[in-house]
Amino acid sequence: MQIGLFHSIQWPEGSDQSDRYAQALTQACHADALGFDSVWLTEHHFSRHGIVSDSLMVLAHLAARTSHVRLGTAVSVLPLHHPLRFAEAAATADQLSGGRIDLGIGRGYQPGEFRGFGVDIAEKNAMFDEALEVLRLVWSADGPASHSGTYFSFEDAAPQPRPFQQPHPPLWVATDSPGGLAMCAAQDWGVLLPQGTSLTVTEGQMKRYADALADAGCGPERARAYLARATHLAPTDAQAWAEAEGPYREFLGYADRLRQRGTEGRETGGRSPFDLDADLRSSVLFGSPETIISGLEAIRELGIESVMLFMHMGGLPHEKIMASMDLFAREVLPVAHEM
Amino acid sequence: MQIGLFHSIQWPEGSDQSDRYAQALTQACHADALGFDSVWLTEHHFSRHGIVSDSLMVLAHLAARTSHVRLGTAVSVLPLHHPLRFAEAAATADQLSGGRIDLGIGRGYQPGEFRGFGVDIAEKNAMFDEALEVLRLVWSADGPASHSGTYFSFEDAAPQPRPFQQPHPPLWVATDSPGGLAMCAAQDWGVLLPQGTSLTVTEGQMKRYADALADAGCGPERARAYLARATHLAPTDAQAWAEAEGPYREFLGYADRLRQRGTEGRETGGRSPFDLDADLRSSVLFGSPETIISGLEAIRELGIESVMLFMHMGGLPHEKIMASMDLFAREVLPVAHEM
Repeated sequence: MQIGLFHSIQWPEGSDQSDRYAQALTQACHADALGFDSVWLTEHHFSRHGIVSDSLMVLAHLAARTSHVRLGTAVSVLPLHHPLRFAEAAATADQLSGGRIDLGIGRGYQPGEFRGFGVDIAEKNAMFDEALEVLRLVWSADGPASHSGTYFSFEDAAPQPRPFQQPHPPLWVATDSPGGLAMCAAQDWGVLLPQGTSLTVTEGQMKRYADALADAGCGPERARAYLARATHLAPTDAQAWAEAEGPYREFLGYADRLRQRGTEGRETGGRSPFDLDADLRSSVLFGSPETIISGLEAIRELGIESVMLFMHMGGLPHEKIMASMDLFAREVLPVAHEM
Repeated sequence: MQIGLFHSIQWPEGSDQSDRYAQALTQACHADALGFDSVWLTEHHFSRHGIVSDSLMVLAHLAARTSHVRLGTAVSVLPLHHPLRFAEAAATADQLSGGRIDLGIGRGYQPGEFRGFGVDIAEKNAMFDEALEVLRLVWSADGPASHSGTYFSFEDAAPQPRPFQQPHPPLWVATDSPGGLAMCAAQDWGVLLPQGTSLTVTEGQMKRYADALADAGCGPERARAYLARATHLAPTDAQAWAEAEGPYREFLGYADRLRQRGTEGRETGGRSPFDLDADLRSSVLFGSPETIISGLEAIRELGIESVMLFMHMGGLPHEKIMASMDLFAREVLPVAHEM
């Protein structure tokens, strides 16, 4: 399996933003040093849920402080970007990292983020589609390209620099709908599966993905899925749960309030990636190294070869996260890499 | 005096983008190691004139590879940015650099860049003004801010992270108009003066700036002006000119074609920052260390305390630029720092 570190840089009440950034960057560099395969950053706006707003910039900074990890967005919220700016930013980060960028893209779900940019959340799917169309246009064009669309129109744009990886960094789409999975299967894009879901839900998602691959004439071995999982290790299960459950529930509760906030009874089109009805025990990797290895084996059996670990939840202290990472690297990572 | 390195990462025909990025980053890190005070990056789009499109991202990367230089944009083209995204990017770079960001802002002048983003260049001044208004709004707000304008409208946006430097990184405005200089004088923002102008033109600009400061009730000692100057050093004047004049004329010619391109007789509102009628001898710093020291003294006498050196022009080879930087650092920088 491939193992990533998934980070959103939350900003709990009473904490300092600069401290939170410094700790997150230290954790990301530690992941690189410990032999993790990737670091993934979310994109969020205007709240304590995550203060990484310019995800590709933070990845470009990490490119200079890490040596081998792949650097991914999980996800860039395409409807909130101008696609030409996004093409430029992705290519710049790709140049600065020597081709280590993975581009996870999604539609967004927090009403406050859309309102904060003056964008109607009801249009997010159409905007996602058009932004992706623009990206594919400029990535495939040999010279200047023009586009006249519903949301974006421009003439003779040839975004520079060009990506280091040609024709573009690998794409990963946050999706579990039949249509989205069919697109990923047809284009050979990866699939990002959300954290917070029970394994039963994940199994259903992988079944739909296998169907989509079959419809595209491919076998299930072509699946490329990266699953996010809240993760915390300690010497015993009891200690791991005692340390992580409170901070994780705090994180989930805040995320759910953001999803609801400001909807005032209207249909927002926003859907949380967190399935809060899931049995907590089957939706996280909290425990001793042995428990985590069993959890990863169960994930691997679903045909999933890559897991990104969400380790900094709520107010969980930096030192506990670093200890959890160390324990993972020592006891679990060598086993996971052989699964 | 303060000495900066000014870079645009040009992409001459036949050169490789990744090589150009790598060389530019090496030069920027070298400037830091040699004791330069700052590194400034332009923002350009869609052409060979400069392939830094996401300037703040490149600065955030350099933050990890340099130790002391200030990191500035010269300039960020405000009409081509969503101001909330710009606020987020500036603050992120400021966090990642521990407060080393300087924000140079301007209106833009290349018609192709505006057309490429589908923005009417005739609106650039109004867009600049509104974008700056939004930035000042969100930098001064304690919580979420709303704005309903001609170009940008949003509700309850509180860009995160907040800048490391409070309330925001130092602003520098590319301007030499009485109105622009009056704004800088009143707000205590710095002024960016363009390269390519003769010293006579620069003297007139500084006179207008002094007038603006006087109108704001300040003496000329309050002036904060950063002047850009094409610069190349070699052991003799003859060698410096032989190496640099061709590449510099090539750079100027290409820049002028971009300014004209696609105007088709229309008034574009675009004005080149390069005064191509200037006597080349009085608008650049090419020569031996002694000649450069004299040139800097002449600039210092105009009341200018900071100069950013534009050293990578046209196809001038990387090794020549590094040698020129070394010579500057050895023979000129200690003298300049005492001026």
